[in-house]
Amino acid sequence: MPSAAVVGTGLIGTSIALALRGRGVTPYLLDRNPEAARTAAGLGAGVVGAPRTPVDLAVLAVPPQHVAATLHEYQLLGLADDFTDVASVKARPQEEAAELGCDLTRFVGGHPMAGREQSGPLAAQGDLFHGKPWVLTPHAGSLPRTLGRARELAELCGAVPVVMGHAEHDRAVALTSHTPHLVASLLATRLLHGDDTQLRLAGQGLRDATRIAGGDAELWTEIIAANAPAVAEVLAEFALDLHEVVDALRDLGAGPPERHRAGRAHLTTALARGVQGRARIPARAAGGLRLSGVAAGS
Amino acid sequence: MPSAAVVGTGLIGTSIALALRGRGVTPYLLDRNPEAARTAAGLGAGVVGAPRTPVDLAVLAVPPQHVAATLHEYQLLGLADDFTDVASVKARPQEEAAELGCDLTRFVGGHPMAGREQSGPLAAQGDLFHGKPWVLTPHAGSLPRTLGRARELAELCGAVPVVMGHAEHDRAVALTSHTPHLVASLLATRLLHGDDTQLRLAGQGLRDATRIAGGDAELWTEIIAANAPAVAEVLAEFALDLHEVVDALRDLGAGPPERHRAGRAHLTTALARGVQGRARIPARAAGGLRLSGVAAGS
Repeated sequence: MPSAAVVGTGLIGTSIALALRGRGVTPYLLDRNPEAARTAAGLGAGVVGAPRTPVDLAVLAVPPQHVAATLHEYQLLGLADDFTDVASVKARPQEEAAELGCDLTRFVGGHPMAGREQSGPLAAQGDLFHGKPWVLTPHAGSLPRTLGRARELAELCGAVPVVMGHAEHDRAVALTSHTPHLVASLLATRLLHGDDTQLRLAGQGLRDATRIAGGDAELWTEIIAANAPAVAEVLAEFALDLHEVVDALRDLGAGPPERHRAGRAHLTTALARGVQGRARIPARAAGGLRLSGVAAGS
Repeated sequence: MPSAAVVGTGLIGTSIALALRGRGVTPYLLDRNPEAARTAAGLGAGVVGAPRTPVDLAVLAVPPQHVAATLHEYQLLGLADDFTDVASVKARPQEEAAELGCDLTRFVGGHPMAGREQSGPLAAQGDLFHGKPWVLTPHAGSLPRTLGRARELAELCGAVPVVMGHAEHDRAVALTSHTPHLVASLLATRLLHGDDTQLRLAGQGLRDATRIAGGDAELWTEIIAANAPAVAEVLAEFALDLHEVVDALRDLGAGPPERHRAGRAHLTTALARGVQGRARIPARAAGGLRLSGVAAGS
């Protein structure tokens, strides 16, 4: 890929720019906040400002609610031949882009499955995407060239491209990312009702189970709001299981012997299903394996 | 502490024995399964078998449902002057011990807040308790000498003794350990309903949020069953918050504009409360600080 631009030099945009620089591409860096773009450039992520002629690919690394307007603006300005984004939801931004009259033939949505608790260009890491899945959501009208460039971007960043439909993507992240985030938030909320002595007993388990709840509330509102129906569906199923467990615990605590036995059996089944579900998370491939796979594909 | 015995040479018992050996105490090791005691001794954790005269302190490192019967048995046999345990729940075993007619003046319950996903003596680590809280739950009738020896045990293991009532302990771990475990299990259970493509998108957040769900289902049934009323209470409050979030997401997905706005505001508030709750988990003290504090106290 001879030329690229990154619009939005926060954590993800700057990390992409740093990864491109490491592969010999010097991206143009744009941000509504010029200071953020200068900071990214100062880190060696590229050069500040717009190119004189359109680049091959522009990466829109802006929050999900700004993707459509940003695409519309930079297609009108002729920033790039092709466009992709990195937003955590894919259906809604594309619908909004269609409503604004964007040229969707030259846009393929993307979502690198990587992040950090920190945000901003100073938290960026050129290896943030190494070995991580990078979802691409082409549609029936996408140009093969556009998809090819988005795929090449993912590969240059060391990620593993995964092509799926945008609705399929949004259901998947409702399950693997958005519901876990809300569950962790609700669990962490319980700690507001504990006293300091109780909280002294916090161990690594609680720290891990609530880590993602520390993420920025405004950003996560945008992400989850843009995928609300799919998240509500998974969370409602979670709530059904939860009620059965609460009932089982009440039987265990005070029920007659046969209810007590049934409650205990239900609790064991619920915990065993958790063990099974946990085991479904794929083991990570070894670093070398990922990188050679990427090198072969790029 | 001149002499000690450890009954139950699993992960926790063997880790305690290794820690004592590192401080110059050679514990007697007993286990219903002689092979486990021999394995622990082979790791350098102490000597297999019962002492000829009572030791100062015996540590009952057996599952919560066996604490009372084990205490009763070894008090009759005269294994030790004083006894403590390491079970994750404290009220129920003590009630059961009272029913069996144990001498509770010479028993002080204990709970070191440390563990690993693995179990058995081969997973033991002499530094497992370094800097971790170690709860002690004396009651009105406990001898000061018994409490002193239990406290000395915690300090010899490098832990930080925390004295509280047994009901207070059980409410605290319902909040900081048992509810998080069940929530992680129910979250992991959702993954049984995802397909392989969806699960490929699993990131570090999901891995962390569900890590504790991998724990042994039988052991956790015993732990949570012995604390069922306190866990049910926290989990029921979690369920109330959850329902409000599900309603907010449904309003966000399909509600009229004013419901949509209210749903969005509710979502932001829920996420912000999660950030606040997460921030209540105390930062860990630096290792050096912990160890010097322990050295001063022991």
